Amino acid sequence: MTHGNVQLLNDRARLMGPNVATFYDDPVHIVKGEGVWLWDADGRKYLDCYNNVPHVGHCNPRVVEAICEQAGTLNTHTRYLHDGILSYIERLTSTMDETLNTAILTCTGSEANDIALRMAEAVTGKRGVIATDATYHGNTSLVSQLSKSNIPSVGFGLGRYFRFVEAPDSFRVTDVDGAIFAASVAKQIEELEEDGTGFAALVICPYFLNEGFPSHPEGWLKPVASVVKKAGGLLICDEVQSGFGRTGSHMWAHERAGVVPDVMVLGKPMANGHPVGGVIADAEIVKAFREGYRYFNTFGGNPVSCAAAIAVLDEIDDNDLVANARTVGRHALVRMDALAEKYDVIGDVRGDGLIFGAEMVLNRITKQPASEFTDRVVNAMRHRGILLSKLGRYKNTLKIRPPMPFSIENADQLFDTLDSVLSEIPLRP
Amino acid sequence: MTHGNVQLLNDRARLMGPNVATFYDDPVHIVKGEGVWLWDADGRKYLDCYNNVPHVGHCNPRVVEAICEQAGTLNTHTRYLHDGILSYIERLTSTMDETLNTAILTCTGSEANDIALRMAEAVTGKRGVIATDATYHGNTSLVSQLSKSNIPSVGFGLGRYFRFVEAPDSFRVTDVDGAIFAASVAKQIEELEEDGTGFAALVICPYFLNEGFPSHPEGWLKPVASVVKKAGGLLICDEVQSGFGRTGSHMWAHERAGVVPDVMVLGKPMANGHPVGGVIADAEIVKAFREGYRYFNTFGGNPVSCAAAIAVLDEIDDNDLVANARTVGRHALVRMDALAEKYDVIGDVRGDGLIFGAEMVLNRITKQPASEFTDRVVNAMRHRGILLSKLGRYKNTLKIRPPMPFSIENADQLFDTLDSVLSEIPLRP
Repeated sequence: MTHGNVQLLNDRARLMGPNVATFYDDPVHIVKGEGVWLWDADGRKYLDCYNNVPHVGHCNPRVVEAICEQAGTLNTHTRYLHDGILSYIERLTSTMDETLNTAILTCTGSEANDIALRMAEAVTGKRGVIATDATYHGNTSLVSQLSKSNIPSVGFGLGRYFRFVEAPDSFRVTDVDGAIFAASVAKQIEELEEDGTGFAALVICPYFLNEGFPSHPEGWLKPVASVVKKAGGLLICDEVQSGFGRTGSHMWAHERAGVVPDVMVLGKPMANGHPVGGVIADAEIVKAFREGYRYFNTFGGNPVSCAAAIAVLDEIDDNDLVANARTVGRHALVRMDALAEKYDVIGDVRGDGLIFGAEMVLNRITKQPASEFTDRVVNAMRHRGILLSKLGRYKNTLKIRPPMPFSIENADQLFDTLDSVLSEIPLRP
Repeated sequence: MTHGNVQLLNDRARLMGPNVATFYDDPVHIVKGEGVWLWDADGRKYLDCYNNVPHVGHCNPRVVEAICEQAGTLNTHTRYLHDGILSYIERLTSTMDETLNTAILTCTGSEANDIALRMAEAVTGKRGVIATDATYHGNTSLVSQLSKSNIPSVGFGLGRYFRFVEAPDSFRVTDVDGAIFAASVAKQIEELEEDGTGFAALVICPYFLNEGFPSHPEGWLKPVASVVKKAGGLLICDEVQSGFGRTGSHMWAHERAGVVPDVMVLGKPMANGHPVGGVIADAEIVKAFREGYRYFNTFGGNPVSCAAAIAVLDEIDDNDLVANARTVGRHALVRMDALAEKYDVIGDVRGDGLIFGAEMVLNRITKQPASEFTDRVVNAMRHRGILLSKLGRYKNTLKIRPPMPFSIENADQLFDTLDSVLSEIPLRP
């Protein structure tokens, strides 16, 4: 680690407090970004195969220009009239089912999920919320309760309203039509009703991205959506990671999964890193929330945020980034399959569009996770100029989720380097 | 109302849902801002006497340049190292007591208050939170419970942890040394301990801005701070509105009030409208929270946000904006006192620095609030090109809280117009 980085880490501990995570054993000090590229303080260039927030590329010129122009013209709040927020919501909802027609804009996905859960309470009059046991939906007091893998030791007793189902795992559990998953949700609903909490909502990423993006056929969420509907609860789809064409086949991952959520939550990539999140739902659901709460978000939907968010949609459209995700994603899976032929440690290859990866196992029969090995791969890749990460219940799945302009050439550089790393580092330390 | 505004209001109802508040009976469609000025779609110019978010002026060139430059260079998150967040926290905390030395940056004041309340739970192991009965601290599920005047009908039962004390009212209640306020907090603490909830924190704006900024002598919060400390709870000062030199005498309003909060919460003006909030506390308090929660905020403390926030501090320093607030504020009180001599409806003149106003009454003896009259004054001022608002328990106090570069000339325009409005509109409709 460089002297400069040691100093920065010491300053972080002093000024930001303990337990502030960094990526990699030897953290990277990034100073510049452009497209799919990042540079560190020593001038070293990295291929960014991880960051989804800069959806249309780091420092995308159209987004930067939109921010500069609007920030220099006007930045105020929604208690005055402005057409920016209206143009954006109109444009955004035109990509969705007709029932997803009304939006509340926030600054973060966490704020958006916090609203979505209250919408469920407002509509159903109940409080029981179900999620998978290996996910993350945000950081407010309420929303952080959705992270079973990191249940907070403080949180005003909100944990009482949350129940968890086992995350889908297409590598280890055969559930081709989604019936097992639906049944496990049904069981939790039943328990919530029995213990008097009642069932308000199921919150899921329709691509189960944090859970390790299991491979499912089209329409896989239909059974669980029926269960939720029959029980009178809301289906909340958190498309913070899976949306905006990430998976290459559709603009929204719930489309491929065969369902229309009652409430959709958006965040990270929405304005390419400018702090914007949002909740989209049918007018009746928004009304129930807005009558329960006199909700106002000072920065939410401000003209600069909306200009940045509109520029992101423009870039997706004009550069056919959803089609690019599909094309490059297919190429990536071919390359990853070839590595799986060569290296037994690759137990499963998964993904769609520009979210893909491989589950690493010590043994293909027992499927024992190679978690520690995966960690070494991630760190070795960082030292060879490729930024990626790992995720899933066993933290043994490579997480590759680059900015959307990621090209076939970029993918080749990634896989050539991964080939070299897999050939060199030992399975056990 | 113009045809264009009717269309925008219809579009808002359709795309944003019902119950989305606007200012004024005839809302303003703002399209451009500069310094203390705003322009509507018809080219009409308004003097902004209301907005505190553009703290160093609408579209402040230094802030806009900082945003543009950093947005074009790099915008990423705190899992990589970056010196922007460290420089900012160092600079910000250097303006505060040495115990306020560690910060968590968020995107909104709501997120910051949500953390502050969890810090109190983490440190005390208790959940009882006390606030005044006429305030607002934000919009998350947890934080919205602090708004007694607008208790949400949904909110996951969090209301059980919140207790309220009567807001200070220097016009109606004589409490020169703050003993009455301290006693009312002590009573709520006692009740929280008795009913088993326990006492975690008192959350207040140290200038009681939402409550109508009552006039208090220096050191007024000392008695209540003693009560809180003795009971083992935290004093959380929400300086979202009162901070950054707004009151003219100090950088932070708690200084004049004679206390050092355990936790300070910041938001709105922090980055002049770029979505930034923050929590500042002693390292031990931050540690207790960070050990209870593995908190991460994707956009929080990103390089663009920090660049904007640093530019705000630069502008405050280089243009002596705290001194300007003091000077212009004194002039404003002189002008307002002169109006009070002339118009019986002005029952009380209050304020410090660039937060000032007057409480309107139908009768100076009974102090009966002239709430409806105040509303007409606010709307009449809007039609004469002056934007201001009203606040307080009876919504009868003019709220004048302009951007910090507000000048004596601006104040004269405001008071000349107010004089004319008060002379023309009848006390009763």
